[in-house]
Amino acid sequence: MTWHRKDLLDLQSLSAEEIVTVLDTAREFKAVGERHIKKVPALRGKTVVNLFVEPSTRTRISFELAAQRLSADVINFSAEASSLRKGETLKDTAKNLEALNADFIVIRHSAAGAPHFLARVLGSHVVNAGDGAHEHPTQGLLDIFTMREKKGRVEGLRVTILGDILYSRVARSNIWGLQKLGAQVTLCGPPTLVPRTFEAMGCRVVHDLKQAIRDADVINLLRIQHERQRKSMFPGLGEYTNLFGITQSRLADTKPDALIMHPGPINRGVEVDGDVADGERSVILEQVTNGLAIRMAALYLINSSRGDSAAHN
Amino acid sequence: MTWHRKDLLDLQSLSAEEIVTVLDTAREFKAVGERHIKKVPALRGKTVVNLFVEPSTRTRISFELAAQRLSADVINFSAEASSLRKGETLKDTAKNLEALNADFIVIRHSAAGAPHFLARVLGSHVVNAGDGAHEHPTQGLLDIFTMREKKGRVEGLRVTILGDILYSRVARSNIWGLQKLGAQVTLCGPPTLVPRTFEAMGCRVVHDLKQAIRDADVINLLRIQHERQRKSMFPGLGEYTNLFGITQSRLADTKPDALIMHPGPINRGVEVDGDVADGERSVILEQVTNGLAIRMAALYLINSSRGDSAAHN
Amino acid sequence: MTWHRKDLLDLQSLSAEEIVTVLDTAREFKAVGERHIKKVPALRGKTVVNLFVEPSTRTRISFELAAQRLSADVINFSAEASSLRKGETLKDTAKNLEALNADFIVIRHSAAGAPHFLARVLGSHVVNAGDGAHEHPTQGLLDIFTMREKKGRVEGLRVTILGDILYSRVARSNIWGLQKLGAQVTLCGPPTLVPRTFEAMGCRVVHDLKQAIRDADVINLLRIQHERQRKSMFPGLGEYTNLFGITQSRLADTKPDALIMHPGPINRGVEVDGDVADGERSVILEQVTNGLAIRMAALYLINSSRGDSAAHN
Repeated sequence: MTWHRKDLLDLQSLSAEEIVTVLDTAREFKAVGERHIKKVPALRGKTVVNLFVEPSTRTRISFELAAQRLSADVINFSAEASSLRKGETLKDTAKNLEALNADFIVIRHSAAGAPHFLARVLGSHVVNAGDGAHEHPTQGLLDIFTMREKKGRVEGLRVTILGDILYSRVARSNIWGLQKLGAQVTLCGPPTLVPRTFEAMGCRVVHDLKQAIRDADVINLLRIQHERQRKSMFPGLGEYTNLFGITQSRLADTKPDALIMHPGPINRGVEVDGDVADGERSVILEQVTNGLAIRMAALYLINSSRGDSAAHN
Repeated sequence: MTWHRKDLLDLQSLSAEEIVTVLDTAREFKAVGERHIKKVPALRGKTVVNLFVEPSTRTRISFELAAQRLSADVINFSAEASSLRKGETLKDTAKNLEALNADFIVIRHSAAGAPHFLARVLGSHVVNAGDGAHEHPTQGLLDIFTMREKKGRVEGLRVTILGDILYSRVARSNIWGLQKLGAQVTLCGPPTLVPRTFEAMGCRVVHDLKQAIRDADVINLLRIQHERQRKSMFPGLGEYTNLFGITQSRLADTKPDALIMHPGPINRGVEVDGDVADGERSVILEQVTNGLAIRMAALYLINSSRGDSAAHN
Repeated sequence: MTWHRKDLLDLQSLSAEEIVTVLDTAREFKAVGERHIKKVPALRGKTVVNLFVEPSTRTRISFELAAQRLSADVINFSAEASSLRKGETLKDTAKNLEALNADFIVIRHSAAGAPHFLARVLGSHVVNAGDGAHEHPTQGLLDIFTMREKKGRVEGLRVTILGDILYSRVARSNIWGLQKLGAQVTLCGPPTLVPRTFEAMGCRVVHDLKQAIRDADVINLLRIQHERQRKSMFPGLGEYTNLFGITQSRLADTKPDALIMHPGPINRGVEVDGDVADGERSVILEQVTNGLAIRMAALYLINSSRGDSAAHN
């Protein structure tokens, strides 16, 4: 199939067919990662700029490796000590990068919508690497890729997402993508962080852990961001773990082949016990490997949209 | 023409012919940036070290991209957490980089003359990426390149440079280069920042904005570095903007085809209004694109001096 | 000869034959650095991650250049702003890098044994770039390489290591490697920093400088890390320099061809005078050049162990 989008901004606006195209393309790139020489020349002579206004080593490295394996050149641009600190607007910074012939701008930003704004004002391809609490589409895609690979399908899967749903871009990208492909999504966590308003998105909202995971095919745990968790809404780490931490004993009441997923970095002993994270149901490290393939696929596909002038602005 | 210099340190010591050689070479490299594959193999196997003792994301990225497009390898070396912090001298740091077979050292330093010092003690090629208030030769060259491209010539052009001239390396490199190519330079700004002593360099010094820009073919605005402006010499942001900020209404009294230039990052509403910066006379983003071509040309030309033993030290 | 080790962790566990293999391989790579095009395709398509949990610009750059010259892709990962700061364990961080198909992890860490731990839990190749006060094997190897190149042999050489031996990983790697190849090692410095317990490693311990350097073929000076020197054990900078600083006059009583070595960065006027560091006996900058060759050899050799399944875990 042909790809028409200049940018990858969110899963909300992608069709099921587009999502499947990314997943299928990533499957081919995953095989590249297992070869002796892990590079393909697809983006030779192209420049990818990692514009990380909010820091994230692991996502930055995943995109940097994806670009390198497509033979692109990579520039890392972090907000510290940059012009953004000198009062330059995001638009001016991005327009400057475009003027340097940056073909791709991968942006992480604390403000929801920042990637969409850039995509509108730039001819460069824009990839959203996480914007505020809005979306993190490549994380959503790699999660769905992993589920499909392990379970053989997405349609009809029961997926429970557990944690701070309210502020999670990972959760939102999962919800949009999974529902488009026909999975049933259950959200679970403390009521302050998992309000019933999510039912309007088509999800089941359950505040009792046992009930939420009993029939799940996949349990996708979110990281508890205790370094920036809102004090008034969060019950405290110990209480969270008591109520929602995943332990071996709690897994006794779940399907024996339920997958344990986590976008990382994990807090061992908080949202998940070490023996569960390292256990045989856990696919946490495979998610990391798959993320590389998804990011290669994303860069590759939006690059193929070039020349498609209707989509280019 | 053949190039004989090992280093690019300033415009003061270049001849008009040498400046034209850089401009002509840059014109060819600019075309490379518009190709589908933006790389040429000219510096394959060479190493460019960006030694940024004073931070500058945008200039560093421009040099990094220039090196990548010439197929060189790039190492970024910033002063933070480096040996310079541990009390190592600049000479020892640079001698170490030379011992690692660094072919090019691109240096930004707060001390005027630091690049010249390195050029004397090193066999590696040295490029000045800005030294104190002294020179920023690639910025001067890209400004002149842009004027020549837009106006078809430099000779006889009336160029007004506006702002904090006293402490500006950009202004000095512009003055040297423009005058060598036969342009007439007017300097304008508050008297404390634009003293009459600049007349000794052959410039016209005017403290009234209206008079300074009335006949200008080019208005080159300097960034007001309000984060480090000397308190006692600077009139205050609001007063500066009132007296010297470029607005649409102030442009009414200028030549209709006068170019608006700025080395970036711009302070919208301070030295220039947003609608002027984004207006049709503004070539600010083209300067960024041209900077890449100038830096490719600089690296390419000084590399061609290799084997020229007389020039090599 | 064939190389069987997956990792390069220390010199203590290498045989004399293995050390000689690294030195011989490095000699060939040193010649590459003198060629017009300094790259070889040996590691094309491989990824080297520089995981520097303790900062070190110069060692990081040396490894980055070594990897580039072998045509590998390089990812720099520093601890600041990374997941390690968010409470992720070192093992989880490293497992993530392995999941990203990182072929080589070059690790610098303040904890002795961290590289050995990673080597056990990862399939990726691990190179120790300095772990606490334990070892810094590539520094030891480049020191020995330099001695062998300059003196034509290692066996029978009298090598005096001078400074803070107790806390020096450089000293330990030198001691292990030099003794395996038959050199005689003398350690010298203040008694608090050079305890007699080192005699158990087979070294001579001497607290009088004159006696320690009189018959030395090589004087290897350690950096006085005055930014982190233990207050209670260190006599003070001035007193150290008075007793142990190497000056021209103190060299009068040594062999005329004794080499002066230093791992850098040097403190001029502290452990060594500037005229000695820059003098004709000094091989300090050649050590830097040789370090690049040693690191290329290390990466090259451990890469060649692939497929050797017994060694691979």
